[in-house]
Amino acid sequence: MDEVRVVLFGVGAMGRRIAKFLIEKEGVEIVGAIDTSKDKIGRDLGEVVGVKKKLGVEISNDADAVFSKAEADVMLHTTTSFFRQVYPQIAKALEHGVNVVSTCEELSYPYTVDETLARKIDGLARRYRVTVLGTGVNPGFVMDTLPIALTGACQKVRAIRVTRSLDAANRRVPFQKKVGAGLSLQDLEQKLKKREITGHVGLEQSMNLIASALGWELEDVKVAPVEPVIAERRVPSKVEGGVTVEAGQVAGLKQSGWATKKGRRVITLDMQMYMGAEEYELYKIEGIPPINMKNTPCMQGDLSTVAVIVNSIPKVINAPPGLVTMKDLPIPSATPEDMRKYIKE
Amino acid sequence: MDEVRVVLFGVGAMGRRIAKFLIEKEGVEIVGAIDTSKDKIGRDLGEVVGVKKKLGVEISNDADAVFSKAEADVMLHTTTSFFRQVYPQIAKALEHGVNVVSTCEELSYPYTVDETLARKIDGLARRYRVTVLGTGVNPGFVMDTLPIALTGACQKVRAIRVTRSLDAANRRVPFQKKVGAGLSLQDLEQKLKKREITGHVGLEQSMNLIASALGWELEDVKVAPVEPVIAERRVPSKVEGGVTVEAGQVAGLKQSGWATKKGRRVITLDMQMYMGAEEYELYKIEGIPPINMKNTPCMQGDLSTVAVIVNSIPKVINAPPGLVTMKDLPIPSATPEDMRKYIKE
Repeated sequence: MDEVRVVLFGVGAMGRRIAKFLIEKEGVEIVGAIDTSKDKIGRDLGEVVGVKKKLGVEISNDADAVFSKAEADVMLHTTTSFFRQVYPQIAKALEHGVNVVSTCEELSYPYTVDETLARKIDGLARRYRVTVLGTGVNPGFVMDTLPIALTGACQKVRAIRVTRSLDAANRRVPFQKKVGAGLSLQDLEQKLKKREITGHVGLEQSMNLIASALGWELEDVKVAPVEPVIAERRVPSKVEGGVTVEAGQVAGLKQSGWATKKGRRVITLDMQMYMGAEEYELYKIEGIPPINMKNTPCMQGDLSTVAVIVNSIPKVINAPPGLVTMKDLPIPSATPEDMRKYIKE
Repeated sequence: MDEVRVVLFGVGAMGRRIAKFLIEKEGVEIVGAIDTSKDKIGRDLGEVVGVKKKLGVEISNDADAVFSKAEADVMLHTTTSFFRQVYPQIAKALEHGVNVVSTCEELSYPYTVDETLARKIDGLARRYRVTVLGTGVNPGFVMDTLPIALTGACQKVRAIRVTRSLDAANRRVPFQKKVGAGLSLQDLEQKLKKREITGHVGLEQSMNLIASALGWELEDVKVAPVEPVIAERRVPSKVEGGVTVEAGQVAGLKQSGWATKKGRRVITLDMQMYMGAEEYELYKIEGIPPINMKNTPCMQGDLSTVAVIVNSIPKVINAPPGLVTMKDLPIPSATPEDMRKYIKE
């Protein structure tokens, strides 16, 4: 087959990282780029991405025009976290017969956000014979796909607990700001109230995805409000230009979700993202047999999200039409060779 | 749908464990049992399994008769490790239109054992519109499916190393004997020569399965001869009636496999199974990002093999026809609820 033809919808921090990675890869070509930001429209993608060569792809805010011209196989979509907001963007790709892989957190399990809209996306995808997937490192991998896969070795599963703890001092500066590092508690509370800081989106999706894979009917799926973590000591950034947090300031955030079944807590997801946190993921499955797995350090979010998105391309192209979740696709796997190698005739 | 109808082919240690587990499960029924052992033929499965009630399933050595009567959906097959030996047993099920999940180690990736026979099985399965899978905890999960899934979060993969280390003192007595615990070095060497002890079968399959998922063309796939581990101190069994190993006797075995690509070792699998060994699995992926995951203790082989086999039933029933490997199926997952819940209409 010819090269896999990709349109990017969203050329923000994540879209640019994906573009850079795709430019290096064999068997795949970026044939269109959509963004609504005025400082990007009309510019060459290569310039915006910072690869120091023109790619011949002009960033446009006219999705229809891009799709009409691009003859794309797949759209890689990185705009916002919220399903209702991305719906028209995704519908547009489907109507042009283009598969979709999106970082939209809520799309990783959209049925509990808006079932009608989820059915509509599924219907559109089937009508145009293409496939839609929401994924990423989290939701999409660390707190759902991987624990689901681990239960494959269990006869019984009583409860699942996943903890992801990451040191914001190691992360890019926008991430440090996203978790409120260096703010006063009062300023953080203001920003939370104004939704300028939202914390992690996706715990609800991860819990529902686990339950749907395990056939569990959950009674209650709760995501607790974001909790500030106050620095007990000074923590400098480990990356250039980052935040140095003083004792007493906000170091970052904690967030928990849990779900019950027959009155018992069966899923617990804990996120910790603050300056100076220990880096790990812990998977505890209470079952027969039990499983106790630890990843140190934790998955590097930006690198791994790019990986999960790009590695999903062939699986989404190969999949039957419709809206799918990670549990419906073959096991995740890297695509280190020419992308075309992974696509079925 | 009606209950999932299962025929067991093989009522040895693993077949009996599977039977016990299925008897407890909802939505699944054992409708036939095949075994060639004279002390089992003609007896009721319940009695042989030790559940103290008749199941109304008489163990038979006439596979054709069993399949003609059973109207089975799936055969759970647990006879031997070797593909060529199981071929006629599996072909029989396929010709009766019955899906197959087998613990046959070589069947987990049979193409490198006998490609012609593998194609023949695939052809038969397609002709009768059923699916065949070889799986288990290892091969099938620990040293292939799980590391493959982990690479899904990697942009690049330079090398994969998996170590599985298990304490034979914790395992059932036949397992302790299978790894030579308590033998003199001379006796072990005799038993290895006579192939009364074979060590682990499946490293070659696991390496090829990883490579096929990653699109790697391996140059060389080597499995080193089994190595004895000599006890440095006395190690008593932790299970009743087990072996106590004295210093200087064989404590168990070590086994390694590795594979190269462009002259570089890209896969290394290490197995350690001896009395007194530390229990863990270690997953090291050298890549971008790297992954370093440890499971403590290691997966409990017998419990997890039963789990992987039974959890695969709905995935195999749902899959398109043909010979499949774990990389072709949706991510593994437990089936804690009524088995019928996991089967698509």
